Amino acid sequence: MKSRAAVAWEAGKPLTIETIEIGGPKAGEVLVEIMATGVCHTDAYTLSGLDSEGKFPAILGHEGAGVVREVGAGVTALKAGDHVIPLYTPECRACKTCLSQRSNLCTSIRATQGQGLMPDRTTRFSCEGGEVFHYMGCSTFSNFTVLPEIALAKVREDAPFDKICYIGCGVTTGIGAVVYTAKVWPGANVVVFGLGGIGLNVIQGARMVGADKIIGVDLNPSKVEMAKTFGMTHFVNPDEVGRDKVVQAIVDLTGGGADFSFECIGNVHTMRQALECCHRGWGESIIIGVAPSGAEIATRPFQLVTGRVWRGSAFGGARGRTDVPKIVDWYMDGKIEIDPLITHTMPLEEINTAFDLMHEGKSIRSVVIY
Amino acid sequence: MKSRAAVAWEAGKPLTIETIEIGGPKAGEVLVEIMATGVCHTDAYTLSGLDSEGKFPAILGHEGAGVVREVGAGVTALKAGDHVIPLYTPECRACKTCLSQRSNLCTSIRATQGQGLMPDRTTRFSCEGGEVFHYMGCSTFSNFTVLPEIALAKVREDAPFDKICYIGCGVTTGIGAVVYTAKVWPGANVVVFGLGGIGLNVIQGARMVGADKIIGVDLNPSKVEMAKTFGMTHFVNPDEVGRDKVVQAIVDLTGGGADFSFECIGNVHTMRQALECCHRGWGESIIIGVAPSGAEIATRPFQLVTGRVWRGSAFGGARGRTDVPKIVDWYMDGKIEIDPLITHTMPLEEINTAFDLMHEGKSIRSVVIY
Repeated sequence: MKSRAAVAWEAGKPLTIETIEIGGPKAGEVLVEIMATGVCHTDAYTLSGLDSEGKFPAILGHEGAGVVREVGAGVTALKAGDHVIPLYTPECRACKTCLSQRSNLCTSIRATQGQGLMPDRTTRFSCEGGEVFHYMGCSTFSNFTVLPEIALAKVREDAPFDKICYIGCGVTTGIGAVVYTAKVWPGANVVVFGLGGIGLNVIQGARMVGADKIIGVDLNPSKVEMAKTFGMTHFVNPDEVGRDKVVQAIVDLTGGGADFSFECIGNVHTMRQALECCHRGWGESIIIGVAPSGAEIATRPFQLVTGRVWRGSAFGGARGRTDVPKIVDWYMDGKIEIDPLITHTMPLEEINTAFDLMHEGKSIRSVVIY
Repeated sequence: MKSRAAVAWEAGKPLTIETIEIGGPKAGEVLVEIMATGVCHTDAYTLSGLDSEGKFPAILGHEGAGVVREVGAGVTALKAGDHVIPLYTPECRACKTCLSQRSNLCTSIRATQGQGLMPDRTTRFSCEGGEVFHYMGCSTFSNFTVLPEIALAKVREDAPFDKICYIGCGVTTGIGAVVYTAKVWPGANVVVFGLGGIGLNVIQGARMVGADKIIGVDLNPSKVEMAKTFGMTHFVNPDEVGRDKVVQAIVDLTGGGADFSFECIGNVHTMRQALECCHRGWGESIIIGVAPSGAEIATRPFQLVTGRVWRGSAFGGARGRTDVPKIVDWYMDGKIEIDPLITHTMPLEEINTAFDLMHEGKSIRSVVIY
């Protein structure tokens, strides 16, 4: 069958809208009609060419929502008509990692996914006679796409696609880091470095679980207003307190240090500050941001020996099929907000505008509606 | 009253045996007759002059066991005749940290303890008319010493002083890191960097809680035999596998990486290896060793984002008054061994020999018996 799709032909070039050919779902696979997709920094990172694992030509996009249109042989968990969110972190419930019950980083299809292929080592996409690679196992920049059954979360049918698509990456990354990775407790003091989309979702996650102080750190004071509506209680601007005095400012504000800090920038210097502003004895710092290739974090080991903990979070520590439907419920129940975060929508033909808005810092999240 | 004591008059000089004057216990304080004391690397570190907080003249020693001889006003938890182990990490059960129930690093007397003073900002020791400082709140190199009530663990009276004194530091540091900090589970794969006294205690802690593979890493193959008797199941010599291939060797041995690793050396390079040999998704690395002043640990944040956790442990995460008596029980019940670790004993007059044996690598632990 055919589908409209935005194809990334090579690094550093705008996407072009094409009519592509899609092979039907093989055993264990599912054909999904994508109804809406967010455009994320990770798509831009791969498109820039800096991602050493990026393969071209490819159909990018990993933050979508849609409807099952056809299932392959042996698929039991889904049927045509089901509403789904694609999962770049699948949940097979059978690999060593899933069975460990200690991590969401399912490894069952990791090797082929990293190569832009389906688990059978082939691609379902072609265009103008040539193969086109999958991306993060999702490729939501195509109106129709094929995914393994284990990489789709079934969600309720009354949830709007143009909002819950954001749960496919950004919302879950931020809220999940609070709920699943850090397990922030009621009354905890929380610090969030970076008030972009991820940071805002960390903030509302902290609010949802009953955190006490929720302190935002950002160089850009224009982000304060929105952050406050999401639950930020205090703001620290490193340019106001002094860039080398951020840790002390947070220790003072919290009466000893943060119970939890979250780094949502991807800067190894703020990652160090995020660790060192944690409370002696028990404070935990969670790295969410993606640092430049080769960059390293550093600190004195004394920081850890005196009780601070350094950890990271990917996809919010969420098990996609199990936890993503719960987050959709939280949105539908009004426990979390998504609507104000989606600052721009556009048809597929204008998808390059979404990248422009991101690079210009004008959007929190742009969503393409098919 | 008077007491025999080994006094450290200045950095870098041998201790000298003196008859000192001790002031009686004030309110909340306890006079203890030390019956035996270990000599630890930390004593040697301070004596060397490298410890920026070291104050002289002082009575060193922090790993003792003894008998309560007199209690000051208001002391309720102890009485004359009780057997006790001094605690350089006290447990007040009232400060923010104790009440957090998330850390053993009680802060109630930290400020004065770091200054070599009792909580009322005075010293109980004098010699030849001049004041002598306390050390780590313990000063077990004096036959009689004074401690706050909150810095003494009451232990069973049938336990031998010349063995359980080691529980005052080394045993608890190693076994506690397994039991209280890491919470190693049965069947876990554990890696221990450094097969000295702390490493051996980590190993037997891992054996006690039912670990599966217990892998030792050390440059010195002469340590293998003893480590095996404590429960080591596999040995990695970096000089045999290649110093830059230690991580891969452990990943291979464990089928993916360690569930827990413990760094017992104090080297920031092995701290990095200890983190990076942990299993993707959930492996936790615990820093126990003390690194040189100013040294920093480093890694790529990707190591944490993909699920590894970096933490540290001080005094094994043990709450002294609550947990130390349990560890004494474990020793008396035969769950852990101490006797083979105490390779040398000596009277106080020969205490400098204990430092010599340590520097020459000839002892695991020397114990002074009063």
